[in-house]
Amino acid sequence: MDTLYFAAGSCSLAVHIALEETGEPFQAVRLDLAKGQQRNADYLALNPKGRVPVLVTEQGALTETPALLLYVAQRFPQAGLAPLQDPFALARVQAFNSYLCATVHVAHAHGKRGTRWVAPEETAAIEAMRRRVPHTYAECFELIERELLQGPWVMGEQYTIADAYLFTLAGWLEADGVDPARFPKVLAHRQRMAERPAVQRALARVQQD
Amino acid sequence: MDTLYFAAGSCSLAVHIALEETGEPFQAVRLDLAKGQQRNADYLALNPKGRVPVLVTEQGALTETPALLLYVAQRFPQAGLAPLQDPFALARVQAFNSYLCATVHVAHAHGKRGTRWVAPEETAAIEAMRRRVPHTYAECFELIERELLQGPWVMGEQYTIADAYLFTLAGWLEADGVDPARFPKVLAHRQRMAERPAVQRALARVQQD
Repeated sequence: MDTLYFAAGSCSLAVHIALEETGEPFQAVRLDLAKGQQRNADYLALNPKGRVPVLVTEQGALTETPALLLYVAQRFPQAGLAPLQDPFALARVQAFNSYLCATVHVAHAHGKRGTRWVAPEETAAIEAMRRRVPHTYAECFELIERELLQGPWVMGEQYTIADAYLFTLAGWLEADGVDPARFPKVLAHRQRMAERPAVQRALARVQQD
Repeated sequence: MDTLYFAAGSCSLAVHIALEETGEPFQAVRLDLAKGQQRNADYLALNPKGRVPVLVTEQGALTETPALLLYVAQRFPQAGLAPLQDPFALARVQAFNSYLCATVHVAHAHGKRGTRWVAPEETAAIEAMRRRVPHTYAECFELIERELLQGPWVMGEQYTIADAYLFTLAGWLEADGVDPARFPKVLAHRQRMAERPAVQRALARVQQD
């Protein structure tokens, strides 16, 4: 059985939802990032990057959200979470997920993780990054709203791993200082997602004490 | 026939190499980023993100390097560029490529593209980001050298799309102020790649006037 290492408020929620959608059993292990548990030696042995999520499979540990999402879809094809046999359709799913990980999540990370990109003593630069997040994060969702989210699901009629990932990052809009009412399609998608039993199960586990 | 939109010095080189490795015919169209050709209306119609690469297929335009790499591998399976039928092995390829796009390429981009993450008038913050690139880019390659690059190829014995992508980003070390001699495995990989006819063909086309 696969084991997901997750943290509240992190992008691991996307993989958590995808796993719940398959209906297959899995274990979930919580990390407390505020306590620095992602830097414990045992965890660094699983993932030297010291980040969540990690999925430990019978063959070994896997990292990076877009990779884990595709893994879940391919490992449990009966769940129909990605158009695995159609190179063009799958590339569109992967392009969306790449945009989320390399542009949208990165825009968000400049709010609290500025020291990834400047020296720790550069407090003015870190503050300048933090101030800009409402602008950059909104820009990302303007593109998603206008160009990428087809509706009702990201890829149109087929629910895919891209939906779990978008729901996760769209959940950060308010905390990043962006009014979600600017993005009615994203907001309707978020609502549609919140009604899915798999999403409710994942959220219930993440929000437990 | 697919058409690749590429730019010299950009990550489009990875897709360029992968296409050359397939032996299948394709067209290549150069964009001059310094002249802002990625912001022309015709190009924005293909890719509203205004970035390279774009691959225009018979079914439509595709974006994002990791997505294009997987597309090429899946579209031309006889080239054997990814372990397509093995979910765990494919997830490891995808995890590597996700790390390159969301962490390594992003570290590099803070050198010249600081205005992606702070307001344009924040010149001191932009300079602080630029100064930090030699540190962050080296950190990324420390992880690649120590943990990720198995040798002789990234995934071990099988040459994959991950090799084309690593070669591309490893080509930026010197310009990013990092001495590649610190990373002997990466350097040997770069040399091994440079000997492949497909790599030489891609480089020759990119470097043409």
